[in-house]
Amino acid sequence: MQNPSDRALPPALLAELEQIFGERLSCADAIRRQHGHSETHFSGYLPGAVVFPRDSGEIIRLVQLCGTHAMPIVPFGAGTSVEGNAVPVRGGISVDLSRMNAILAVRPNDFDCTVQPGVRRLQLNEHLRDQGLFFPIDPGADATIGGMASTRASGTNAVRYGTMQDNVLALRVVTGDGEEIVTSRRARKSAAGYDLTRLYVGSEGTLGVITEITLRLRGIPEAIAAAVCGFATLEGAVATVVQTIQLGIPIARVELLDDMQMRAVNRWSKLSYPEVTTLFFEFHGSEKGVAEQSELVGELAKANGGGAFTWALRTEERSALWKARHDAFYAAVGLRPGAVGWATDVCVPIGRLAECIAQTKIDLTTASIPATILGHVGDGNFHVIFVIDPHKPDEFAEAQRLNDRLVERALRMDGTSTGEHGIGLGKIDWLARELPGAVEVMRHIKRALDPKNIFNPGKIFRDD
Amino acid sequence: MQNPSDRALPPALLAELEQIFGERLSCADAIRRQHGHSETHFSGYLPGAVVFPRDSGEIIRLVQLCGTHAMPIVPFGAGTSVEGNAVPVRGGISVDLSRMNAILAVRPNDFDCTVQPGVRRLQLNEHLRDQGLFFPIDPGADATIGGMASTRASGTNAVRYGTMQDNVLALRVVTGDGEEIVTSRRARKSAAGYDLTRLYVGSEGTLGVITEITLRLRGIPEAIAAAVCGFATLEGAVATVVQTIQLGIPIARVELLDDMQMRAVNRWSKLSYPEVTTLFFEFHGSEKGVAEQSELVGELAKANGGGAFTWALRTEERSALWKARHDAFYAAVGLRPGAVGWATDVCVPIGRLAECIAQTKIDLTTASIPATILGHVGDGNFHVIFVIDPHKPDEFAEAQRLNDRLVERALRMDGTSTGEHGIGLGKIDWLARELPGAVEVMRHIKRALDPKNIFNPGKIFRDD
Repeated sequence: MQNPSDRALPPALLAELEQIFGERLSCADAIRRQHGHSETHFSGYLPGAVVFPRDSGEIIRLVQLCGTHAMPIVPFGAGTSVEGNAVPVRGGISVDLSRMNAILAVRPNDFDCTVQPGVRRLQLNEHLRDQGLFFPIDPGADATIGGMASTRASGTNAVRYGTMQDNVLALRVVTGDGEEIVTSRRARKSAAGYDLTRLYVGSEGTLGVITEITLRLRGIPEAIAAAVCGFATLEGAVATVVQTIQLGIPIARVELLDDMQMRAVNRWSKLSYPEVTTLFFEFHGSEKGVAEQSELVGELAKANGGGAFTWALRTEERSALWKARHDAFYAAVGLRPGAVGWATDVCVPIGRLAECIAQTKIDLTTASIPATILGHVGDGNFHVIFVIDPHKPDEFAEAQRLNDRLVERALRMDGTSTGEHGIGLGKIDWLARELPGAVEVMRHIKRALDPKNIFNPGKIFRDD
Repeated sequence: MQNPSDRALPPALLAELEQIFGERLSCADAIRRQHGHSETHFSGYLPGAVVFPRDSGEIIRLVQLCGTHAMPIVPFGAGTSVEGNAVPVRGGISVDLSRMNAILAVRPNDFDCTVQPGVRRLQLNEHLRDQGLFFPIDPGADATIGGMASTRASGTNAVRYGTMQDNVLALRVVTGDGEEIVTSRRARKSAAGYDLTRLYVGSEGTLGVITEITLRLRGIPEAIAAAVCGFATLEGAVATVVQTIQLGIPIARVELLDDMQMRAVNRWSKLSYPEVTTLFFEFHGSEKGVAEQSELVGELAKANGGGAFTWALRTEERSALWKARHDAFYAAVGLRPGAVGWATDVCVPIGRLAECIAQTKIDLTTASIPATILGHVGDGNFHVIFVIDPHKPDEFAEAQRLNDRLVERALRMDGTSTGEHGIGLGKIDWLARELPGAVEVMRHIKRALDPKNIFNPGKIFRDD
């Protein structure tokens, strides 16, 4: 792959960009590097320029201009994706949407809101709190709503509230035709033609630029209770989760962290949990409902070798608990000074989860690099975090080998290589193995909607 | 539009079809008429032939053959759709999938199953019952699962369990390339590229032929209770529903039937409910959960002028109640001997529902034709059934005028012309008004995936 930072932008294009964006166009090295960087090891690609649009009119002009010049356009949110999803592998223009961060409307009676793509998750929930509403999708990072829609994000609450797929009601998108379209009205359900909303959600910026998102909201539950429970064995913890799901208990969150991950969390967040496989739970509902759910889950945990629940009932206690969980990636990486992290992302049918995690744990015990297991186990989705010395190519190779084994295991169980991180750069070859015929249909769609291949080229499937 | 029954099939094509299908190819008038008919007024188009495939291999050969001859292929399930979705407006081959009705796998530990497209909804639930599982989507009619996927069906349970969009995990589809693809693995969530599953769900057979469906299943709840409650006013009934949703009570079903519809139901099903606006409720959960939900909803109903709940607790009582609801369309049509029914299908944001229904009711009271109101009000979706004398063109014109006013009203409220029936023939012009830019994107996709326009041509958008 040619390093696109070698490809300077044509002066004519630059002049036109400057006309549109003025001081909101930057070719400064630091800014370009920031937009070529990602949270993980997919880095080292630079955009030719970065623009900071203020409204969709500017994005329309940008798309028309880049169409003429066959110049890549790579939408950029908070830069928190983990498969290199927003890295400009073909150079071109990085479109930083952080200044389009207005909450345009909140409609409490309809339980929805409309936001610009640069709105952050925490910003939105802060804004909603006084109205008794919240937006449940929580990938951990304080991502932008546009980025979360683009990667079909999910996270800790998905077991109860679904993923971005289930919570985006409608989008505005600037398409390859340089038109801004609306994908759906705001009714909660619709059978009005092809479901373009759910086609663009998860398309990782490869089919257009999302300029507005209408989200489904929920009422803040009457009662919320979180708890932590350590287990004698990994198997017992996983069995508790699987039985909880199979009994249909409407648990809001259930996160697994293995012994190694708990050690990392204790160090990083200065906590003193027992360093054994642990489940973090959260229950939402009426007072009675929460009591009933937690009693049932408590019985399951006990029968599977779980200890007593440590409860977090007050808001600050719960926030501390989930902050520790959300920092788990950094905590794992912090196990080795100077290390980098590599997170896997398989998701399997719930009945195969115990087997999949058990086999993976065996692999990790014999590995030459440290690794933790954690995940959104109620969905069948879990991550291994490999903690790698970036100066040792052998360690990358070992992580690669272990990840390959893990994805192959998940595919044999009819699972997926990516539950929530998307394809980006990191899963391109796996997607072709996971859904071989479907990839050809995806390519047909890509060519039809982006005939000049300007939208985030080189992602989801190879274009060279 | 040319009546395609005038277009005989080329003898060479017929000979090749006979090679593939033998006695499972029919050109008999009665069979062709049966596959040109629909439940509603979209009738009078005949396929050139009807085939009854046994497996996807035959469908692959059929698609390749029809590609060569540029011959339309119209998938046909149970013929219960209401917008003419499976009517062969361009003639060609009606593909009756009723013989592909095997339940291929049920995986209780994964809460999913895989079925052929001709499996009927009741057949599936009958099969699942012994395993403590059920498939929640219930459009009333005993439709095929393939048809329900194709039209993105929903119905009475959607308020709790979602629509086909939320409950199809994966599809096998024979595409325009004449290949059979798998759209997704079985994991409960996935970020593996474009969501083709949800693109094909609701595409009404215009992008390929669905040959296999993997469905998400649910455990039969510990407790189920249904109740009927009459209201002093239409407004009071709607307010009860809106408040139930806004409080986040996880009601499983909440159906509204207006006074006129209750009169029809009493006559048709030989019942004696008070002939006032009525809500039919169903509650699912633990014993405690059902008790809590029904108590809360009971309080809301009382505060809004509702009477006492009439409970249906035993399975047979509940079945009788929901059969009466499911027969509501026939009951309405039965109000006038020899009449035909025309069902509207708007869906609006829940905060606008009361206003939308109230304005509609005013329209109907001054109409010259009888009409009832009923619907899945928890989703913001309701139907008006116009009861029309088919020999009086004035009555069709009046229904048309009232439907136009209703759809315009829903669009003004940012709702949709179709909550669950799909576009078919009946909503083509409305779709173009509802989502003007999006329709162009849909056309791009149609051309990319069906370049010869053989899959159910003339549906969703005009092709002439």
